[in-house]
Amino acid sequence: MDELRILVTNDDGIMSPGIATLVNYLKKITNEITVVAPDIERSATGHAITIRTPLWVKEVSVNKDFLGYAVNGTPADCVKLALQALKRGSIDLVISGINNGANLGTDILYSGTVSGALEGALMGKPSIAISCVNSNNPNFESAAEFLINFLKVFDIKKLPEFTALNINVPSRPYSELKGWKITRQSKRRYNDYFEARKDPFGNTYYWMLGEVIEDDPSDDSDYMAVKNGYVSITPISVFLTDQKLFEELKEVEKTWR
Amino acid sequence: MDELRILVTNDDGIMSPGIATLVNYLKKITNEITVVAPDIERSATGHAITIRTPLWVKEVSVNKDFLGYAVNGTPADCVKLALQALKRGSIDLVISGINNGANLGTDILYSGTVSGALEGALMGKPSIAISCVNSNNPNFESAAEFLINFLKVFDIKKLPEFTALNINVPSRPYSELKGWKITRQSKRRYNDYFEARKDPFGNTYYWMLGEVIEDDPSDDSDYMAVKNGYVSITPISVFLTDQKLFEELKEVEKTWR
Repeated sequence: MDELRILVTNDDGIMSPGIATLVNYLKKITNEITVVAPDIERSATGHAITIRTPLWVKEVSVNKDFLGYAVNGTPADCVKLALQALKRGSIDLVISGINNGANLGTDILYSGTVSGALEGALMGKPSIAISCVNSNNPNFESAAEFLINFLKVFDIKKLPEFTALNINVPSRPYSELKGWKITRQSKRRYNDYFEARKDPFGNTYYWMLGEVIEDDPSDDSDYMAVKNGYVSITPISVFLTDQKLFEELKEVEKTWR
Repeated sequence: MDELRILVTNDDGIMSPGIATLVNYLKKITNEITVVAPDIERSATGHAITIRTPLWVKEVSVNKDFLGYAVNGTPADCVKLALQALKRGSIDLVISGINNGANLGTDILYSGTVSGALEGALMGKPSIAISCVNSNNPNFESAAEFLINFLKVFDIKKLPEFTALNINVPSRPYSELKGWKITRQSKRRYNDYFEARKDPFGNTYYWMLGEVIEDDPSDDSDYMAVKNGYVSITPISVFLTDQKLFEELKEVEKTWR
């Protein structure tokens, strides 16, 4: 079998430890790894792309771990640039991560890590976002080990078009992971509040703060899986149409005419 | 009946003509309009939020059209700030637009306009994104007129939690609109390519260019509706779980154990 040709990106930046650990583990299953990642941290950039300014690309050697391309753009920019220019026609799988911190619930709308995977899906490639849940004490090794074992048993090339997997791994040693679960994106979201301050010139500015609201305690929900020690694997799509509401409104539509 | 209390935002910036036209039309149905919008254009920011720097808020008078708040952030920031701080507890409906240019198909993942509406949905408010299809020759008046007529017949407060409407209006006089259609987000997306150049110092940089691929000619698709002269109304959700793949993988999951 030919080796998997993997594109790696992230949103914590090309110098972050999560991406280095990921690359070192992926080397165990393939020699065909390309890293194209933001030059600096781009967390919470959502699915932003850079359209008004050009993208600079710089080859960088990251410690002794890998040679990669640093880009002054977002994860989505990196994936576009890699698939359409730098490595056109020679990528089988896009992996975005390993993020330092969870990407669960409706939070994933803000996630640069997830947007890297969604961009891969948009461009027709099987794609994975992978995150380590506890940002204060991440265990990138167990997440990376889970991923390569998962890729051995799951034929990722069969992932349907326009879909991706959003994987979250609890921060604990690999041997202490309880297993994995297929989950749904939950309603886990933030209740934001703002702290108002005055700058030295009398202008008001606001710091955004937030606390998590978890209101989907079902067994299938992504955050319950990781809370219980399981790896959460959520199949996600680039299509936002609300199917139920679509059908309801189609009925209403008839009465409008 | 109490008047609708409407929050207006956009991604073209608070000084853009689309938002002024929207506000002027909304004045016909309510006096309770609050505008909180980015200080400058924030197109293609996706669902980015600002987490590392504070947000500055400045009250501005836009021509003689309205008094609003300009924020050095994204549309999602503006909605969070408005709903949680500036106008906490006193908004019934979030409207993001009128965008100068279409937000159709998988493109909507990149859309700041749509992310403004999705943020409203996340925060539990009925929300609408509205865009004028032809950015070279927008007709904001017809889009605004459509919207206020739509709000007269459609009880927007009944929109289910966590959903929003993504509305795209063809650029033509209101009397020449053929009607409206409930649609699905299509596969309309971009085939990107990159033009490589050298800067004066010998470094390579890339301009992203793109052409639209339209490969969903079904009657229900968003772009076919506007192509045929109809207003497209797509019900969208903040949940990305791919239901079909979820069910398939749940079956596979059993064989893993």
